[in-house]
Amino acid sequence: MSRAADLLRAVVPADVVEDGDAASDDYAHDEALGSTPVRPAAVLRPRTTAEVAAILRCCTEHGIAVTARGSGTGLSGACIPTADGVVVSFERLDAILEIDAAGGVAVVQPGVTLERLDAELAPLGVSYPVRPGEHSASLGGNVNTNAGGMQAVKHGVTRHHVLGLEVVLPTGEVMRTGGRTVKSSSGYDLTQLVIGSEGTLALVTEVTVKLVPRPPHAATVLAPFPSLAEVSAAVPHILASGAAPAILEYIDILTMAAIRGGTDVDLGIPDEVTETALAYLLVRLESTSTTRLEEDVEAMGELLVGLGAMDVYVLPPGAAAHLVEAREKAFWLVKAAGADDLVDVCVPRAAMQDYMAAVEEIATRTGSWIAGCGHAGDGNVHLAVFQADPDVRSVVVHGLLHAGMELGGVVSGEHGIGTTKKPYYLELEDPTKVALMRRIKAAFDPAGILNPGTIFDPEDQP
Amino acid sequence: MSRAADLLRAVVPADVVEDGDAASDDYAHDEALGSTPVRPAAVLRPRTTAEVAAILRCCTEHGIAVTARGSGTGLSGACIPTADGVVVSFERLDAILEIDAAGGVAVVQPGVTLERLDAELAPLGVSYPVRPGEHSASLGGNVNTNAGGMQAVKHGVTRHHVLGLEVVLPTGEVMRTGGRTVKSSSGYDLTQLVIGSEGTLALVTEVTVKLVPRPPHAATVLAPFPSLAEVSAAVPHILASGAAPAILEYIDILTMAAIRGGTDVDLGIPDEVTETALAYLLVRLESTSTTRLEEDVEAMGELLVGLGAMDVYVLPPGAAAHLVEAREKAFWLVKAAGADDLVDVCVPRAAMQDYMAAVEEIATRTGSWIAGCGHAGDGNVHLAVFQADPDVRSVVVHGLLHAGMELGGVVSGEHGIGTTKKPYYLELEDPTKVALMRRIKAAFDPAGILNPGTIFDPEDQP
Repeated sequence: MSRAADLLRAVVPADVVEDGDAASDDYAHDEALGSTPVRPAAVLRPRTTAEVAAILRCCTEHGIAVTARGSGTGLSGACIPTADGVVVSFERLDAILEIDAAGGVAVVQPGVTLERLDAELAPLGVSYPVRPGEHSASLGGNVNTNAGGMQAVKHGVTRHHVLGLEVVLPTGEVMRTGGRTVKSSSGYDLTQLVIGSEGTLALVTEVTVKLVPRPPHAATVLAPFPSLAEVSAAVPHILASGAAPAILEYIDILTMAAIRGGTDVDLGIPDEVTETALAYLLVRLESTSTTRLEEDVEAMGELLVGLGAMDVYVLPPGAAAHLVEAREKAFWLVKAAGADDLVDVCVPRAAMQDYMAAVEEIATRTGSWIAGCGHAGDGNVHLAVFQADPDVRSVVVHGLLHAGMELGGVVSGEHGIGTTKKPYYLELEDPTKVALMRRIKAAFDPAGILNPGTIFDPEDQP
Repeated sequence: MSRAADLLRAVVPADVVEDGDAASDDYAHDEALGSTPVRPAAVLRPRTTAEVAAILRCCTEHGIAVTARGSGTGLSGACIPTADGVVVSFERLDAILEIDAAGGVAVVQPGVTLERLDAELAPLGVSYPVRPGEHSASLGGNVNTNAGGMQAVKHGVTRHHVLGLEVVLPTGEVMRTGGRTVKSSSGYDLTQLVIGSEGTLALVTEVTVKLVPRPPHAATVLAPFPSLAEVSAAVPHILASGAAPAILEYIDILTMAAIRGGTDVDLGIPDEVTETALAYLLVRLESTSTTRLEEDVEAMGELLVGLGAMDVYVLPPGAAAHLVEAREKAFWLVKAAGADDLVDVCVPRAAMQDYMAAVEEIATRTGSWIAGCGHAGDGNVHLAVFQADPDVRSVVVHGLLHAGMELGGVVSGEHGIGTTKKPYYLELEDPTKVALMRRIKAAFDPAGILNPGTIFDPEDQP
């Protein structure tokens, strides 16, 4: 039995603490490609906020590292624990505490998954519109990575839909930030500070989210283009048109081939188009009426053709759902295809075309395959890197991140820094900013117990 | 000459520093009702970020308090300086650095006013949709108070439209947060932390904002209701309908009387309706087409009548513009009418009705007049308190804030804590949260020079 497990059994019920063979290997990793799993000293599965508080008090007192974990679907290694630390898994804190459809608010525990919440909301005509590809992800994990997804182009990301949190500080103090109000100018926005902090500041034990009306009608169109450059150039025009698409994704030829190979769905695109298109735009429009939706689809079709689309295909509902789902699951396709790393740089929309040119140059120069798809409307590019040589791969990833930042972009649009992007991030980011972030971390976590090794190197703690 | 002025003349050009008679009385106050002006030791009007950095380095070294000031239109006394400190006024940092209409981004210096930015954006078909009532307010001031305004119900507040900042830390270090990307999961969101921090963390020297397409068509309807309770009850239904109004304001009978008295605009409402209506809803709808706008106005009218409106008046464009402007200027009306204090509690939308009942109870119990209007769609209530006795007034304001917090609300939806709401805020807020905020302030401002007395008491600095 580990020392950490012994200490923690003294403060929480015995069945909250698992160590040795009782702890599953699942808790040693997330879905980050190429990362090394680490078995923690113990896995803790608390049932209440009070148990989370007891755990953190004990860990601060004894200097035990704590790694928070939602569903483990992260892509940056942020929930890989340390060998002598513990994992706090939120799977038992999984209650939907309240849904106020009229008031546009839901309150959930962090272990609730997106798919479960959506199943509860759908019959009520409302939606939590943040839809990262992996619907088995937990709300707590989403808060900590500031998850995005395909609907961000219309609805924004997690930080735009979380109104309030209950968090436990490393000292064991329980604190509420924000609430059910849609706005506030009453002190620092601690909700926004915790969102995207990847488990390094506090543990989230309750999440209050904003709900939106669920539009009753939607249509999906797919537009093949002769080049990726034309896709990138089209995006600002689509957004400036006021059409407000719910989804505006690009899919490159490699990714589309993988999607087509992985499903038997017929998109109704003639072979001669498939053979010459080098990129696709996937556009989803929503409306309160079928008449308006038809008008909007018609107008979008004309706009796309004017912007260089080879043709425009309004997908039958079944095919549309399949394609959207296949796009959401593109990570699994590239993983199965043997991708070695995954990058989700986000650049200013206006810089998309330049960034895609830089990506092509890096791929050519290093002899790597780089397949892409992503949230074109947000400038958020998901790139799967196929490069077996780890040294060359490191050059490629560094090059992709550096090129993005040179164009005014950021290392990650929605996956986070975690442990796998940390070395690049710490090298590329402004040292003044990193130093300030470390001081902020110390303001929350003076003992440095929360998720050491994620975002910062542990020895860099102030 | 003041000691502070002498020290600062050594680090910036002489004409940046004004003291004694050369410094205008304007810098001693903002527009907060009932606050006491304080003349600072010097007024600094830098022209560059480098000058701001030199000022802060010097002030940190010598322990000189620094109060940042935009246009001085704040309503919470956040830019009232200390007698031995300095004001840094951003009026000379007033360049619009870039407008990228296609990319949906503008970059401005903090001294740019909302009305100037809007005048530049209008011909380009884009909009910065955050519209607090006072259009002479500066972007820098808006960032520091997280300003809102009538269009927040559709577009959100300042924090939802600021993508990035350039800030100067109290040490004089210049740092960029965020950028032109619409999303990021790359370290702590320092942009969001600075927004709404009321000049206590860093000085903002550049603001990058997100622009939205400017809808070409709009209509404004005014609906009188027999009671304020029915107005409050109607709001969630309007939002749930998916109509997405750009403005959804309530105006109570006292405020409407002041508005009607202050303008000669004819709203076309028959006297018998005016005489019996106790509250009004003002709804603005926007659309990309006139046909759709007409349909939407028709549907909104039916909805409002179904929710208890006595009638629905589609205002002629001229009258609509006048009424919206009069509502925006309601602060000046209540100030001219002799209001003694102003409160802008924000409660969960679902709690609006209960809150308005609590307000009525407080007014009756204390023998005070409390006139209201506000952003009904956000649950953000603006209350003008008429109570000449300062002791009773303090009880009234405390009661209004406490009642809001009891219903899950916050002290301020958009005006900020400043110096005038600070005593109430520090009493009503969770001490754990205040202590954490103080530690965060120390992470930015270890010498405690920035805006002492705003949000926190100066002696409370760690």
